[in-house]
Amino acid sequence: MAYITQNFSGLPAPVRIGLIGSGWMGAFHAESIARRVPGAVLAAIADPNVESAEALARSLGTAKVTGNAEDILADPEIDAVVIASPVRFHSSLIAQAAAAGKHVFCEKPAGQGLEELDAALAAVEAAGVHFQIGFNRRYADDFQAAKKDLAAGVAGTPQLLRSLTRDPGNGSIPHAARVPAWTIFLETLIHDFDTLNWFNQGAEPVEVYAVADALVEPGLRDQGFLDTAVVTIRYSNGAVAVAEANFSALYGYDIRGEVFGSKGMVQAGRATETAARRYTAEGMSADTPRLNVELFRQAYTDELADFADAVRAQRDGVPSSSSAFTLTPGAADARRALAMALACIESVKQNAPVAVPGLAASAAVGGRAGA
Amino acid sequence: MAYITQNFSGLPAPVRIGLIGSGWMGAFHAESIARRVPGAVLAAIADPNVESAEALARSLGTAKVTGNAEDILADPEIDAVVIASPVRFHSSLIAQAAAAGKHVFCEKPAGQGLEELDAALAAVEAAGVHFQIGFNRRYADDFQAAKKDLAAGVAGTPQLLRSLTRDPGNGSIPHAARVPAWTIFLETLIHDFDTLNWFNQGAEPVEVYAVADALVEPGLRDQGFLDTAVVTIRYSNGAVAVAEANFSALYGYDIRGEVFGSKGMVQAGRATETAARRYTAEGMSADTPRLNVELFRQAYTDELADFADAVRAQRDGVPSSSSAFTLTPGAADARRALAMALACIESVKQNAPVAVPGLAASAAVGGRAGA
Amino acid sequence: MAYITQNFSGLPAPVRIGLIGSGWMGAFHAESIARRVPGAVLAAIADPNVESAEALARSLGTAKVTGNAEDILADPEIDAVVIASPVRFHSSLIAQAAAAGKHVFCEKPAGQGLEELDAALAAVEAAGVHFQIGFNRRYADDFQAAKKDLAAGVAGTPQLLRSLTRDPGNGSIPHAARVPAWTIFLETLIHDFDTLNWFNQGAEPVEVYAVADALVEPGLRDQGFLDTAVVTIRYSNGAVAVAEANFSALYGYDIRGEVFGSKGMVQAGRATETAARRYTAEGMSADTPRLNVELFRQAYTDELADFADAVRAQRDGVPSSSSAFTLTPGAADARRALAMALACIESVKQNAPVAVPGLAASAAVGGRAGA
Amino acid sequence: MAYITQNFSGLPAPVRIGLIGSGWMGAFHAESIARRVPGAVLAAIADPNVESAEALARSLGTAKVTGNAEDILADPEIDAVVIASPVRFHSSLIAQAAAAGKHVFCEKPAGQGLEELDAALAAVEAAGVHFQIGFNRRYADDFQAAKKDLAAGVAGTPQLLRSLTRDPGNGSIPHAARVPAWTIFLETLIHDFDTLNWFNQGAEPVEVYAVADALVEPGLRDQGFLDTAVVTIRYSNGAVAVAEANFSALYGYDIRGEVFGSKGMVQAGRATETAARRYTAEGMSADTPRLNVELFRQAYTDELADFADAVRAQRDGVPSSSSAFTLTPGAADARRALAMALACIESVKQNAPVAVPGLAASAAVGGRAGA
Repeated sequence: MAYITQNFSGLPAPVRIGLIGSGWMGAFHAESIARRVPGAVLAAIADPNVESAEALARSLGTAKVTGNAEDILADPEIDAVVIASPVRFHSSLIAQAAAAGKHVFCEKPAGQGLEELDAALAAVEAAGVHFQIGFNRRYADDFQAAKKDLAAGVAGTPQLLRSLTRDPGNGSIPHAARVPAWTIFLETLIHDFDTLNWFNQGAEPVEVYAVADALVEPGLRDQGFLDTAVVTIRYSNGAVAVAEANFSALYGYDIRGEVFGSKGMVQAGRATETAARRYTAEGMSADTPRLNVELFRQAYTDELADFADAVRAQRDGVPSSSSAFTLTPGAADARRALAMALACIESVKQNAPVAVPGLAASAAVGGRAGA
Repeated sequence: MAYITQNFSGLPAPVRIGLIGSGWMGAFHAESIARRVPGAVLAAIADPNVESAEALARSLGTAKVTGNAEDILADPEIDAVVIASPVRFHSSLIAQAAAAGKHVFCEKPAGQGLEELDAALAAVEAAGVHFQIGFNRRYADDFQAAKKDLAAGVAGTPQLLRSLTRDPGNGSIPHAARVPAWTIFLETLIHDFDTLNWFNQGAEPVEVYAVADALVEPGLRDQGFLDTAVVTIRYSNGAVAVAEANFSALYGYDIRGEVFGSKGMVQAGRATETAARRYTAEGMSADTPRLNVELFRQAYTDELADFADAVRAQRDGVPSSSSAFTLTPGAADARRALAMALACIESVKQNAPVAVPGLAASAAVGGRAGA
Repeated sequence: MAYITQNFSGLPAPVRIGLIGSGWMGAFHAESIARRVPGAVLAAIADPNVESAEALARSLGTAKVTGNAEDILADPEIDAVVIASPVRFHSSLIAQAAAAGKHVFCEKPAGQGLEELDAALAAVEAAGVHFQIGFNRRYADDFQAAKKDLAAGVAGTPQLLRSLTRDPGNGSIPHAARVPAWTIFLETLIHDFDTLNWFNQGAEPVEVYAVADALVEPGLRDQGFLDTAVVTIRYSNGAVAVAEANFSALYGYDIRGEVFGSKGMVQAGRATETAARRYTAEGMSADTPRLNVELFRQAYTDELADFADAVRAQRDGVPSSSSAFTLTPGAADARRALAMALACIESVKQNAPVAVPGLAASAAVGGRAGA
Repeated sequence: MAYITQNFSGLPAPVRIGLIGSGWMGAFHAESIARRVPGAVLAAIADPNVESAEALARSLGTAKVTGNAEDILADPEIDAVVIASPVRFHSSLIAQAAAAGKHVFCEKPAGQGLEELDAALAAVEAAGVHFQIGFNRRYADDFQAAKKDLAAGVAGTPQLLRSLTRDPGNGSIPHAARVPAWTIFLETLIHDFDTLNWFNQGAEPVEVYAVADALVEPGLRDQGFLDTAVVTIRYSNGAVAVAEANFSALYGYDIRGEVFGSKGMVQAGRATETAARRYTAEGMSADTPRLNVELFRQAYTDELADFADAVRAQRDGVPSSSSAFTLTPGAADARRALAMALACIESVKQNAPVAVPGLAASAAVGGRAGA
């Protein structure tokens, strides 16, 4: 052969990621890591449901499998973990992973209570590992464009904000048996809370008033399953925000954000699947976004790419092209949004406005892993 | 370690691709192959400008380098080539690659004349290798949605079609010295011709009337550099199409398609970069798409993924998830669009309508590699 | 002359309207009546500020002028009145006009308290005259299209509603001295309340929670001038609505409505002044609507045309082409929206949810003049 | 009565308009004049079909009727005429009306040949009366906004222009028996030609190449009825324009304009009937504009209001608020567009580009009545 150069094998070793939880989002993150995140390898999958983990590994043609997350945490070849287990294990897994020296990417919410979360974040802080929370909207192209405009002052000082999540529910409302009572706040609106905090940067949420009901499936109301909610949030800068969610949007997956301020307004949110339009005797029409993993495919890839890049940079002691050591959304973001969700639950119980616990107690949650 | 399964190493061997040409599009294709196309490996880069090839290989941390494309064609480890050389070498490289048993993905146009192209496509046919042409718009999400609607009969029988390319020219018009005189037809409008042929499926282009001028840089007119063109095309089904191009769209990269027919209209084309909108004292505004490699990033990835998948399927003798053995856009598409571009050049010279040479001569250009 | 027919003078006598109040909206209504409402005549203008009334009459080249509204009420040639006086006189003028046998079109709100309003509406009922309230959004083309879809069940059962008013304030925030403290609820959000009631037809507002602040002009907060407000409303059908207002939208006059329900979503609201778009090096842009009298020019004309038509039909004892005898928005609509505004004021004072007084007390407010 | 002022009867006497022709557009203009144009009166209607004229007069409750246009021209109480007769009478009616001292508003086209039109315009010039041609798109809000931007240089020097007319045909294609063979150029595309001339102000159309066919009703091709056409136009400033028309747009009445130039692009054209949008399980949808008299209702009113204002100003010897004495679109506009339509017919016959006759011969067509 006459090749001048045989290979530029200067690529750093890939980041080896262990996945904990092989459900809906776990499986999608696995596919992202295996196929779309440059420089990352899906090294192992842990799930008590071993068949699920094996099927996932087989479909991707890669990864070791275990029924026990501790195997991953003990594996010295693993650089970092992606936590996509049921929510009730999030905080303890974060703490264990950090103690094992693994960098942590965790699906939202990072915990079910502030106490357990603070303990987990303290472990992260103590271990000096990276922590990132899966608030993927921060990586969506339109939300990033809006944020850029907001940071540039296009809307001036925020006065009115709005964020909403309307989920098609994959065609059927999840059964109460499968969904904890306050899911709409803890797992759904927590995205909107983070978006609002991010858009209203510098201001702290002070008080919430939440209304929630079972309008889609009234028969599940008594079991505590709420499918519709509206939250009013007062911020420290005077701005008033509204977050809104529903679990049965027949027209698709509808995610929007809006900030109105002293100088104007900025909006994010994709009304149609593509730019294609059709015009017929019935009028104009277009397809709408249907699944979160379609609407946010790029965002889900990019958040993991940022995470992998930061992990690699710290591991190899080199500068990172991303925001290494200041990964966002990070610890403080995870805690702030959870505090809001918990205050909403209290507000619904009381039908009254409720103060959001300040971040004073989590002063330690800053530093390297915070934002 | 307690892993139940050590690895699912069932992944087929990756498709090994050799890149010929490391210029603007070659470099972008290299990056796509190295980072975004699952199951593909950028194995080697050939460019007479060896420094360019080396810089590219280094930036991607991979690939062998040579100054001679023949090294790649002779390398038994290479499954397929991506041709991104200057246009004047396309036909001969296609023929050589096919003769060497390599599958071929070629940037448009596939040749500069019908005779050389027919020879190349005959070589492809004889070798039984795959051939795909880089008409990337077929892979853009909005153009695919429009095509799906058209195939479903949403617009009925096509009567009026439109396709346009307005290129920002990367901020400056290419110098005449760098651009062959008829670039606007051979390299730019050829995309629009293919889009129109694809949208008006089943009909053949019969006659063209082309107007072209140097409106952006009138001083270059005498050197034959034309920056603005409008083409009227009559199709065998009676439909009339208009293709339009300009090389200096200050507002960005504007690519649109429209089909009007007996039942309605279908449109493709992305007016803004993202769904974000801003509202200020100056009114409503949004950013526009700027670069082809941004607007069509996904399309450029997907066309190569389809190609790699077809190559792998044929190599391994397994069913392909894509359209193996009927890769599109393929040989017939490449030839049809080139015939239109050549007829346009003649039309400009005569200022008269000119017939498009039929595809009779290329009857052989069907079969496995065609579409 | 050889005309076959000399004239088809079969047109009914025009409806003669007296205007009470020649301020901003009064002057605009005068112009609508004089120039754009077919079959109506601006017969007289009353305003204590006689110069203002005279200037208006002169600019329109028509109408008698008086400083005293009673002159109009006593004038037997006047069929109907349009009340556009300061709000504090609305209820008593309605009552007086009805007692004088004049049909009444009144700008919103119809009163400042439920007691005075009930008395006025009782007088309307007793006199058997028409009563219409100036909730002009019901006549805007996009709001009508949305209502039509909602009535056809396009969105299914409403679950989440939104209505907002963002007012550019004509370039400057009104001075506290000129604006009563609770203007944002009584005069601005009352439009949104009516829109929500109309869109959620059949359901009654049950409870409101309102947040209001002086964010545009914090210095006026102590004088009670509030420029920003968000209201959460619970309806009898379980639906939750949000109404939102701000007095300083620098980008223009922004009025939107949205209904999400069990089958889909319907939206109204015009984002840009016209369909024209510009694309420049700065991206895509368009002008935004600026003034209520521009955005709603047609709506302001059509509501008065409907009113005039009903008046004429009753006067002449002929069938009306519009909704005579069931004019909407009418008495019940005026009362329902006012009750909500008053409950909001109480909610702000208490920072707690407040029940909306039921319509039981106004059972008499139905019949001919109601809706 | 205590009125301070009995009346401001300072309004000038209304402009008295005679309508010639009571067909589709004549009837609509009659309604506009009678109901929507301030300061104008529909004084008389002439139509050989007297029943049609009488029915129209009766529906509007006004106007004298005659079967003979000469009655109107001889009536000293008539200030101006609106010509909406069959096209073949336009030129002679313009000439007769001008000779009778009547101001003229004429539906397009102003004639069927340049010779007859030049004679008519010479009569207008000699009489010193106003002449306006019914190119109503100049009065559409979005086309005006685009024109304003173009005049301000937003798009720079025009390089590529587009104008299109897609007509739903009121649900059925007009029968060949009712439509002269070249209607698509003389009556439909003539609108687009004027729009392009207006948008490309200062440049003259130099050459056209037209393609036309019977695609909607192929059976009518032999009778010369063409329902689909595409025209390429070269302008004196080098810009290339495309005009396009079709007579069977099932999705509605689609009128668009686009100018691309050295600095950007400006677009006009309303894709949907209102700003309302619906989202259902089928995706996003909206109604489309259906009839010209709906889409351009305001434009049809405003063009006549401008005309009436200019007539009144000249009659009363007072300054006009509009563009009196320079009414546009005027004589030169009417002639330029007709010359283009006639050149298109020749181009179709020859299937070759054809030069547009210059305006030299019509040098006299300037002055007071021209533009």
